[in-house]
Amino acid sequence: MVKIDPNRLMGDLKRLRSFGATGPGVVRLSLSPVDLAAREWLAARMTEAGLDARIDGVGTVFGRSRNSGPALLIGSHTDTQPTGGWLDGAMGVMYGLEIARALAENDATRHLAVDVASWIDEEGTFSGLLGSRSFVGDAVDESIRGATNRQGERLEDVLKAAGLAGRPRARFEAGRQVAYLEPHIEQGGRLEAIGKSIGVVTTIVGLREARLRFTGQRNHAGTTPMAIRRDAGAALVAFIARMNDAFKQLADADTVWTVGRINLDPGSMSVVPGAADMYLQFRDANTARLQAMDQRLAELVRDFNVQNAAQNAVSVELQTIDEPIEPVSMDATLAEHIARAAEALAPGQWLRMPSGAAHDAQVIARCMPACMMFVPSIGGVSHDFIEDTAEEHIVLGCQVAATAAASMLLEASAKRS
Amino acid sequence: MVKIDPNRLMGDLKRLRSFGATGPGVVRLSLSPVDLAAREWLAARMTEAGLDARIDGVGTVFGRSRNSGPALLIGSHTDTQPTGGWLDGAMGVMYGLEIARALAENDATRHLAVDVASWIDEEGTFSGLLGSRSFVGDAVDESIRGATNRQGERLEDVLKAAGLAGRPRARFEAGRQVAYLEPHIEQGGRLEAIGKSIGVVTTIVGLREARLRFTGQRNHAGTTPMAIRRDAGAALVAFIARMNDAFKQLADADTVWTVGRINLDPGSMSVVPGAADMYLQFRDANTARLQAMDQRLAELVRDFNVQNAAQNAVSVELQTIDEPIEPVSMDATLAEHIARAAEALAPGQWLRMPSGAAHDAQVIARCMPACMMFVPSIGGVSHDFIEDTAEEHIVLGCQVAATAAASMLLEASAKRS
Repeated sequence: MVKIDPNRLMGDLKRLRSFGATGPGVVRLSLSPVDLAAREWLAARMTEAGLDARIDGVGTVFGRSRNSGPALLIGSHTDTQPTGGWLDGAMGVMYGLEIARALAENDATRHLAVDVASWIDEEGTFSGLLGSRSFVGDAVDESIRGATNRQGERLEDVLKAAGLAGRPRARFEAGRQVAYLEPHIEQGGRLEAIGKSIGVVTTIVGLREARLRFTGQRNHAGTTPMAIRRDAGAALVAFIARMNDAFKQLADADTVWTVGRINLDPGSMSVVPGAADMYLQFRDANTARLQAMDQRLAELVRDFNVQNAAQNAVSVELQTIDEPIEPVSMDATLAEHIARAAEALAPGQWLRMPSGAAHDAQVIARCMPACMMFVPSIGGVSHDFIEDTAEEHIVLGCQVAATAAASMLLEASAKRS
Repeated sequence: MVKIDPNRLMGDLKRLRSFGATGPGVVRLSLSPVDLAAREWLAARMTEAGLDARIDGVGTVFGRSRNSGPALLIGSHTDTQPTGGWLDGAMGVMYGLEIARALAENDATRHLAVDVASWIDEEGTFSGLLGSRSFVGDAVDESIRGATNRQGERLEDVLKAAGLAGRPRARFEAGRQVAYLEPHIEQGGRLEAIGKSIGVVTTIVGLREARLRFTGQRNHAGTTPMAIRRDAGAALVAFIARMNDAFKQLADADTVWTVGRINLDPGSMSVVPGAADMYLQFRDANTARLQAMDQRLAELVRDFNVQNAAQNAVSVELQTIDEPIEPVSMDATLAEHIARAAEALAPGQWLRMPSGAAHDAQVIARCMPACMMFVPSIGGVSHDFIEDTAEEHIVLGCQVAATAAASMLLEASAKRS
């Protein structure tokens, strides 16, 4: 059986962490100097592992196996959030590197091809999921042209300054890459809460984002009796209560919805709010449920306006913010390889679950079968300096991924021959 | 009977409006160049009316009658909000000036003393109600020392630059001024809603302000199941619903409460809020009811924390922002003079009502009997450029105030002799 080297894996993870280390966390924003240095290091480490490694025209580090296909592509991202954890993305890339090495060290698997990718800008410093979108053939030049980071630096300029502009971009090689595996930290608290070690991802949830704008009448908070107020803030609060009740009727245990932001205008203690905005996001693994929630939300808005028009009170307008993102199913056959490996290495310690977060895998799934696996996040925390995973889970996860990877590739080779 | 001159009144109001006119509204912030120019004009106009007029050491324009007492003091303010209406405060001062002239033109009342004041900074550009507080003998030097406007200009420097620092300050003259009358626009929509023309103020409401801070756990909005969230924003919304129910039980038709501002932290669509603040204000004319609301709010906070401690969920902390302001009763005898004048001039067209807004009268009431009267605000709007009052109401209000003023002074003179 393929054996990963826990010390080598942990050593590489810690070395990668040193690029941008900030307390227990990491600040390694896409294409920042420290991120570029980490990419150079990663490419060199891939080369040492026998891969043909390069940084491509958008910044993705791509290590191509020198073996002929069928190839398994293992990837994730090494960029971080502004206050990032050390494993978010990084762990999956280091798994890929370690698995490429481990397969090469085993007589039964040394002929197999593992390509490894660190997709640029998964976290959206400039343009989210840029590397994977470029890989699958999206017209990313449009995304690149308009993109700036929070400091206003233009992505085009940054790519030029880094010497990347004009380089070839890694692209999907049909006929070679037959499957994509993305190992990742869970970023939620479910595995920990029920004491499991491995999550086999069934679906990456779909997502809706909307702004609801309530319009009433700004007025003096002392002289305007409650009975004649048109308080946009009070209407917003009442609407959320109704929405919560309605969504609870439609939800299952995995459905989530969040009001992440509320603005009352003008935001003064002495003024009845004349306008109020709420920013709503909801996610679910089931397209039909998302559509039912879309529809229910539209009905709530319509009902609210009908009821309030009668009283000349507050009106509400629903504004969608981005295109809806539909759920993406992970490939069931690939998931079965992971499940078998998990059951062999940690019997009863794994479960199937959706991914509540977005990942490059949802993009890559557009050109080949894709799968994901999770290890537990301590306290369910991510996008925070204190994000962490127990070392035993990191090591176990890599061994499960390596075992599954070998099994996927052996099956693919058997099919092809 | 005393007769005011509508044309003279409206002419003066329009002339005063020209200082800082901005569209239909006025921007005349305390001690700004245009406000100082308006004060010079007002003092000159008082002098023409036979008053001994000066701008005092804090900026209050004080026109003292040359007649001996007992004197009626009529006042309000000529400074405005950053986006002020043309009548808020200004109307009451112009009423005072017109009433002083009207009484002097009538043989039966020419011996009566009307002092007129435009109190500085009622609106709190530097320090709210400064002029009236100085007049009643508050230690305002402390307020002055720390006070700056939004541009960071220090009040001390502004008073010096205007040549006012060191001038004597107008002070209450016990034995002379026996009553205070402040006519004002309603700033609410009640008179208009029921088709009345004059409000006789019974009480200036008391006020409480508090911040409620909810503390939960910031988390990923996609990967954190609803069941294990500690969503501070959702807790805030649920709390407001309970508070609304509880306050409705305690309220009468005049009780008001307002959540004017809500902040969710970090305020991102993809993050479950880990903290949430709401800013609450409530007002009522009845001290016992305010205290009952204080107590109910504290109970709601305690109950909320007890319930949530059990679930290790969200906690809430109640922080008071300013000292409580207690309701101030207007003098019933003075109010009766206004009511009689209103009934004589506009039978059935007036009502008794509380003032939901703060006014200089609540300060002046500390040294002498005080009263207020309102005229309707169109659409209930104030603190906005479009604030307005029908000319017929402006004129009627001044005639009612003049009639009441004469009646108050004649009664006071009769008592003294």
